[in-house]
Amino acid sequence: MRWLPAIGSAPGTTGADERDHRVFRHTKLLQFEAKPEKPDPVYAHKLQELIGGAFGEMTVTMQYLFQGWNCRIEGKYKDLIMDTATEEIGHVEMLATMVARLLEGAPATATAEAVKDPVMAAVLGGMDPQQAIVAGGGALPADSNGYPWNGKYIVASGNLLADFRANAAAEAQGRLQTARLYNMTDDPGVKAMLKFNLARDTVHQRQWLAAIEELKADGLEDDVAPNALLDEEDQTHNHTIWHLSDGPDGAKGTSWTTGAGIEYLMDPQPLGGPGTAPKPDPALYGTYAPLQDAKGTAKGKAKEVKNKLT
Amino acid sequence: MRWLPAIGSAPGTTGADERDHRVFRHTKLLQFEAKPEKPDPVYAHKLQELIGGAFGEMTVTMQYLFQGWNCRIEGKYKDLIMDTATEEIGHVEMLATMVARLLEGAPATATAEAVKDPVMAAVLGGMDPQQAIVAGGGALPADSNGYPWNGKYIVASGNLLADFRANAAAEAQGRLQTARLYNMTDDPGVKAMLKFNLARDTVHQRQWLAAIEELKADGLEDDVAPNALLDEEDQTHNHTIWHLSDGPDGAKGTSWTTGAGIEYLMDPQPLGGPGTAPKPDPALYGTYAPLQDAKGTAKGKAKEVKNKLT
Amino acid sequence: MRWLPAIGSAPGTTGADERDHRVFRHTKLLQFEAKPEKPDPVYAHKLQELIGGAFGEMTVTMQYLFQGWNCRIEGKYKDLIMDTATEEIGHVEMLATMVARLLEGAPATATAEAVKDPVMAAVLGGMDPQQAIVAGGGALPADSNGYPWNGKYIVASGNLLADFRANAAAEAQGRLQTARLYNMTDDPGVKAMLKFNLARDTVHQRQWLAAIEELKADGLEDDVAPNALLDEEDQTHNHTIWHLSDGPDGAKGTSWTTGAGIEYLMDPQPLGGPGTAPKPDPALYGTYAPLQDAKGTAKGKAKEVKNKLT
Amino acid sequence: MRWLPAIGSAPGTTGADERDHRVFRHTKLLQFEAKPEKPDPVYAHKLQELIGGAFGEMTVTMQYLFQGWNCRIEGKYKDLIMDTATEEIGHVEMLATMVARLLEGAPATATAEAVKDPVMAAVLGGMDPQQAIVAGGGALPADSNGYPWNGKYIVASGNLLADFRANAAAEAQGRLQTARLYNMTDDPGVKAMLKFNLARDTVHQRQWLAAIEELKADGLEDDVAPNALLDEEDQTHNHTIWHLSDGPDGAKGTSWTTGAGIEYLMDPQPLGGPGTAPKPDPALYGTYAPLQDAKGTAKGKAKEVKNKLT
Amino acid sequence: MRWLPAIGSAPGTTGADERDHRVFRHTKLLQFEAKPEKPDPVYAHKLQELIGGAFGEMTVTMQYLFQGWNCRIEGKYKDLIMDTATEEIGHVEMLATMVARLLEGAPATATAEAVKDPVMAAVLGGMDPQQAIVAGGGALPADSNGYPWNGKYIVASGNLLADFRANAAAEAQGRLQTARLYNMTDDPGVKAMLKFNLARDTVHQRQWLAAIEELKADGLEDDVAPNALLDEEDQTHNHTIWHLSDGPDGAKGTSWTTGAGIEYLMDPQPLGGPGTAPKPDPALYGTYAPLQDAKGTAKGKAKEVKNKLT
Amino acid sequence: MRWLPAIGSAPGTTGADERDHRVFRHTKLLQFEAKPEKPDPVYAHKLQELIGGAFGEMTVTMQYLFQGWNCRIEGKYKDLIMDTATEEIGHVEMLATMVARLLEGAPATATAEAVKDPVMAAVLGGMDPQQAIVAGGGALPADSNGYPWNGKYIVASGNLLADFRANAAAEAQGRLQTARLYNMTDDPGVKAMLKFNLARDTVHQRQWLAAIEELKADGLEDDVAPNALLDEEDQTHNHTIWHLSDGPDGAKGTSWTTGAGIEYLMDPQPLGGPGTAPKPDPALYGTYAPLQDAKGTAKGKAKEVKNKLT
Repeated sequence: MRWLPAIGSAPGTTGADERDHRVFRHTKLLQFEAKPEKPDPVYAHKLQELIGGAFGEMTVTMQYLFQGWNCRIEGKYKDLIMDTATEEIGHVEMLATMVARLLEGAPATATAEAVKDPVMAAVLGGMDPQQAIVAGGGALPADSNGYPWNGKYIVASGNLLADFRANAAAEAQGRLQTARLYNMTDDPGVKAMLKFNLARDTVHQRQWLAAIEELKADGLEDDVAPNALLDEEDQTHNHTIWHLSDGPDGAKGTSWTTGAGIEYLMDPQPLGGPGTAPKPDPALYGTYAPLQDAKGTAKGKAKEVKNKLT
Repeated sequence: MRWLPAIGSAPGTTGADERDHRVFRHTKLLQFEAKPEKPDPVYAHKLQELIGGAFGEMTVTMQYLFQGWNCRIEGKYKDLIMDTATEEIGHVEMLATMVARLLEGAPATATAEAVKDPVMAAVLGGMDPQQAIVAGGGALPADSNGYPWNGKYIVASGNLLADFRANAAAEAQGRLQTARLYNMTDDPGVKAMLKFNLARDTVHQRQWLAAIEELKADGLEDDVAPNALLDEEDQTHNHTIWHLSDGPDGAKGTSWTTGAGIEYLMDPQPLGGPGTAPKPDPALYGTYAPLQDAKGTAKGKAKEVKNKLT
Repeated sequence: MRWLPAIGSAPGTTGADERDHRVFRHTKLLQFEAKPEKPDPVYAHKLQELIGGAFGEMTVTMQYLFQGWNCRIEGKYKDLIMDTATEEIGHVEMLATMVARLLEGAPATATAEAVKDPVMAAVLGGMDPQQAIVAGGGALPADSNGYPWNGKYIVASGNLLADFRANAAAEAQGRLQTARLYNMTDDPGVKAMLKFNLARDTVHQRQWLAAIEELKADGLEDDVAPNALLDEEDQTHNHTIWHLSDGPDGAKGTSWTTGAGIEYLMDPQPLGGPGTAPKPDPALYGTYAPLQDAKGTAKGKAKEVKNKLT
Repeated sequence: MRWLPAIGSAPGTTGADERDHRVFRHTKLLQFEAKPEKPDPVYAHKLQELIGGAFGEMTVTMQYLFQGWNCRIEGKYKDLIMDTATEEIGHVEMLATMVARLLEGAPATATAEAVKDPVMAAVLGGMDPQQAIVAGGGALPADSNGYPWNGKYIVASGNLLADFRANAAAEAQGRLQTARLYNMTDDPGVKAMLKFNLARDTVHQRQWLAAIEELKADGLEDDVAPNALLDEEDQTHNHTIWHLSDGPDGAKGTSWTTGAGIEYLMDPQPLGGPGTAPKPDPALYGTYAPLQDAKGTAKGKAKEVKNKLT
Repeated sequence: MRWLPAIGSAPGTTGADERDHRVFRHTKLLQFEAKPEKPDPVYAHKLQELIGGAFGEMTVTMQYLFQGWNCRIEGKYKDLIMDTATEEIGHVEMLATMVARLLEGAPATATAEAVKDPVMAAVLGGMDPQQAIVAGGGALPADSNGYPWNGKYIVASGNLLADFRANAAAEAQGRLQTARLYNMTDDPGVKAMLKFNLARDTVHQRQWLAAIEELKADGLEDDVAPNALLDEEDQTHNHTIWHLSDGPDGAKGTSWTTGAGIEYLMDPQPLGGPGTAPKPDPALYGTYAPLQDAKGTAKGKAKEVKNKLT
Repeated sequence: MRWLPAIGSAPGTTGADERDHRVFRHTKLLQFEAKPEKPDPVYAHKLQELIGGAFGEMTVTMQYLFQGWNCRIEGKYKDLIMDTATEEIGHVEMLATMVARLLEGAPATATAEAVKDPVMAAVLGGMDPQQAIVAGGGALPADSNGYPWNGKYIVASGNLLADFRANAAAEAQGRLQTARLYNMTDDPGVKAMLKFNLARDTVHQRQWLAAIEELKADGLEDDVAPNALLDEEDQTHNHTIWHLSDGPDGAKGTSWTTGAGIEYLMDPQPLGGPGTAPKPDPALYGTYAPLQDAKGTAKGKAKEVKNKLT
């Protein structure tokens, strides 16, 4: 079987190229150009958010990879996920390269004492010390406050509806942060790259929203994730919003009341009894004694009560 | 002005009830009953996921609170967010109470030596040691692997479309995990509580999806978050999926191609040049020397090359 | 039964107000005013410490909530804890609102290039990039170095003496940090809010110290937590301080020697034998061989020794 | 035996006391014996809590070291802190040695398949996989759920009252956890060591409480930390407890009302106005539009409103 | 320019294949087979260490990628790094797939109550709850204690000697952990895969050690990293080991004394004065007063002393 | 001067050498002087990297301590480790003292408004807010971005080859970061201390590299860690580098090809089949249905397929 079969047109009609079978592969050409006009170490600091932030490129890379590996249906969904995952690795590369270039010529070793003008002062104050001390003028796997990327940022649940929603949300936050960063620079080279990023975030948002529709069209999932236990869940409480803050306008939203058939419960009541914690295990030394007895009694008495528990 | 104005009738006209103005308030009655039939410390361990996991109740509590405080439009959206946020605090309470009750009578101090039957062995192996050692038989602000809840689990961006997507995603993952946990117990008391949780997760999913529609109906946001820079982003690359993995079926999804007008780019090419990192700052001691010169030369020669850089 | 019974008069006798039974509730009025006179994004950065720092308001909120839920005695202690817990949620709200207001008009998207005066340079250098990029001009659940709040900051052990000590300590550190931040601003609006915070931290310190006295008066706990195993612990070593650093004055403290009956052991000796780790499990490949044999022997010999272990 | 034995020549024969000046020093004899009667890998797992937990020995070691280094008064306080800090390093050593010995002979590489009796099953289920895989049968710098020790567990504020309170609290939680673990083993060797630990935690609790009294006797600190801004803080709110949960008994505590002169405010009211977040910076794309206008208008209209903001 | 130029032999002599220019790419065929003979959820739990542990495959993937992107010399070093980095992504995939397969048929939803035999008890106790609850029967980006992978595990300093040492160390720890895990299973399918992993870790260790030699041969780096400031560093202290613990044998190692010319300093002395912290800033409320004055004085006196500082 | 001076009576007059047996001990004299000429809070911020960074002094302290405690061979290796470990504690002390001194006189409470010149602006922007707010002008157990030190930074595997490699790598990164920081200050006092640090890092690098040679000379370990399973590992794949990125020069490195006998595999092929994840457990709700059937079918049909799985 060929690695890259034709779809409609015939890009792969030429003979098998076994050389293509090399698991993950890499070319040194960047996915998009990443050349700033001039150095800007303060911006290099901020740009870390798009690399190692909660909604940065490391997140979508790892989220899509794990989702693809955890996908239980062969075919269009898994292939879509893996195509996108593979693209995102290249985004991290592009951004890491941009950071290194923005740091070229940065006053990495300048002292505060040496500052003579405000521009330089703002640069010294706004630099990420670890980009110099730890990475020697390169990017870090961390966000714009130096917090490292971590595996809790991603989810790969095996349920595609739940995961595609998370993907659409991640791309939305990612594009939002990119748009904010777009407004924080005037450098044409940086802006050109971010225009590419914005575009990719746009199509990825649309793609995951469309994939949710496809899941429904295929009858695989429905509006609620997971498409299960809908008959077993508490029917009294699966269509009400509880009014618990005093803003009066929550009930005025037509989409969630009229549109989605949700009832705004203006006077919700607790349905359970008191949240009393059970009597403690004496071997764990939680403070305990029937308080009505303990009050006004001497220490000896209370100890006696405690001892009985034991 | 009344704290809790009627909806429909004129808000605020009935007599003031000043006692109601007490910022956050709490009643000791649980939102829903949380009484297990019998102890189950292994399940108490697993249930931590719904308290302090990435998609547990602490997450939705804090996510909605910060979104509400960060919401820039007074009215129905903010009120909806704050109503839901306030409800979620009570969910944490309900689950924490359930954990304490599931641990009542647990063999917290039993030794492995004392085990005589497999049920007990499974219990000893599957307990969370910190629920006994740290919490004295209570719940922890952590997940089912003992990892503490942290603030990176939440987002409150100020952009309601991006945030509502994150909310719908969180409720989907939350309901999915609840459904999985529902299948891991036979206790009628636990199942009753989880049926309530499932129901709330259902309506919250629907509510946030409806709120996204409301944002569009109000002309505040559109399909893509943020609703900005759409004309400035790279028009060539905002409607293509790049085929980078070899699964051939990604292009077969009709929703994202025909439906969403996305083109499947079967033969994507890098758009940038080589990702070469710049010449290092000599004061940061990155390894460097024009390699074509350095090869085959003596140390002295290479050092000389290095020195020139400095 | 009424939600909020009178104290003094008969609790619960007046007419039921069922509307009050709404678990956690919220009013949109702030606990205290949070209006700065003018924006100050550098201060908004520092103020994060009081929101999401180890001793910030998220900590006391969650610590008291979990302590209340984990409290095993109904009555005055639990009620005190829950009253205080509920207040603290409002403190987070107040501070998050203050941060958003301090950021209004902040030069979120200004570039370092544009800086023309030192004040602006200090502002650019001292801002929290994530308040703009992630929160869109709002507060984060993180501290003043961008580190996220996490569940390890809190403790709810079920032992009230141990927990009330932790509470008194947390309020002390909290007031100390508030006092330091009070000295870092001249804004009358900010100072007014911080005066309220200082006051609350004062009364909370006093309250937890008093609650410790109450525990003793009730005979529930005593000086040492837990009030157990005092006869079983090592009687030789429960009243000595070991002199292990060379500062000579430790023994001069009268409160801990004369007052508390502690003996300053000037010449402490190790009580155990050598801390030798046991022979390793060969299947785990710890480096091992009887070294007196191995020295000076050839590889083959040492391997032979190793093999015998296996 | 001499502490510093000669090797070949006789470096210690001169008897010079200057040899003693060697910064931190170490002897290989354990502070107390750490020999279990038999292996117990499940207990070795739990014992991690006392090494790397939030209130384990790594915490008190580092907390006291940093407090000592940060102490601004030479003399009895600093010397007391450094004496205690130096002792705690040895506690970590003692516990790490105990863990290694409890793991000797543990079925580190046994498979679940091989299990034939419940005791073994409980052992396999309850072991810490990383003690074998990562540490090769030794201790980890982590707690009983495998979460690594981190620097946020400690505080060294420079204010001795605030810090000594934190120390007394840490020793209380530490002794509580030790007492719980004492009840989880029958091994005489382990129990002997824990009796030593309990004793040290007792005296350390007493010592820090006494040191707080000493601070007051010396006129250095008082009841409230820091002893400052007491006249500037909000006098109306520095002696009231706000009744915000519905448990009626909080006001019944005599120590905090009569004793500490605190007033229980039964009907607290919000003191601030609405917590409205300010108008967003258009460049950050927070969702915004005067909602009363936006409702019912077409997209174009709302966009127009939005554009005006920009 | 061709993507895959010939080296010696001519694998790429046929004409340019532009399709190859696709940045990162992926084929669905695994790098090596990952098929267990039968399910083993306890082993799936342990195998997480090789995926998301500190020395797992996510670490080497990200470490090599960032090193490659941060490499300042084009040519053999960078190409070697990127070749290896790209391979490691496939290792994560292989292991994640193995985990999913080991979980197939796992008793994910079995209750402790249902356990009837010890094997099942050990399985229930030893499973990772999040593999079921969070990942739906798949791998997590976390280690064998559920701790998430994070960016602090990696280093990419730009200095190739320092980084290649870190690489050789990571591959050594990785192979060690793999070898331990190899002894924890009898499954032929798992063992076959681990034999492949062991082999790759062997060659990667050798490769990085060789690359260190290459750096020296090229005159780019030397024995000490960085190859700089060797003349400026303190010449008195750059060749001595300080004898500070009482084990007498440290000086007996011939390689580090005779071999490396290091002197074993048997009687090291402190070179600095007392580590006194400076007088505190009064606005930060560190406890302070000249203690010799404060002792025995009344509060008023001590306060007076404190005030003078201010 | 005696290390342990008498207080009142004369506890040290007996001259007994037993006094030396005091586990860990400490003298207040610093290992090396740490006196800056003048304050520099921006540098105090950066210096945190050497205290609590991934390769700072807390890391080597804890890494060597745990390695020593986990070492299974008594004698020269263990003694070397413990000598070095004990030295490193003093390095943390020296650096923490330096930080406190660099902060003396820092404008901890200055407001951005008050800034009048660029030097001050750079200082305000570049300070670590927590050094003032949390530590009151002292050091933190954190790195230069405020991220806390944590136990995952260290390794103590019991295998000395693997651990000594990690040590040599840590000292290399440590010296590299120290060298970078050396270039970021002009203060003679700071530079003098760093010259000492550089020297210690030099000798420690040499020492661990020599210790690796000693392990080989003693026949305890060999080139590859662990020295085991070399015959069992996959012989086909333990000597090849896979060419997976397109840089052509990887194969040109003579040390790793000719020198180490590694073959550069220019055309590597996947050795496994498709990485298909198994059919999901229906109780965990992974999305699944034989897709070839599901496509084009109605919802009912797909549900039917799903039900059959259950």
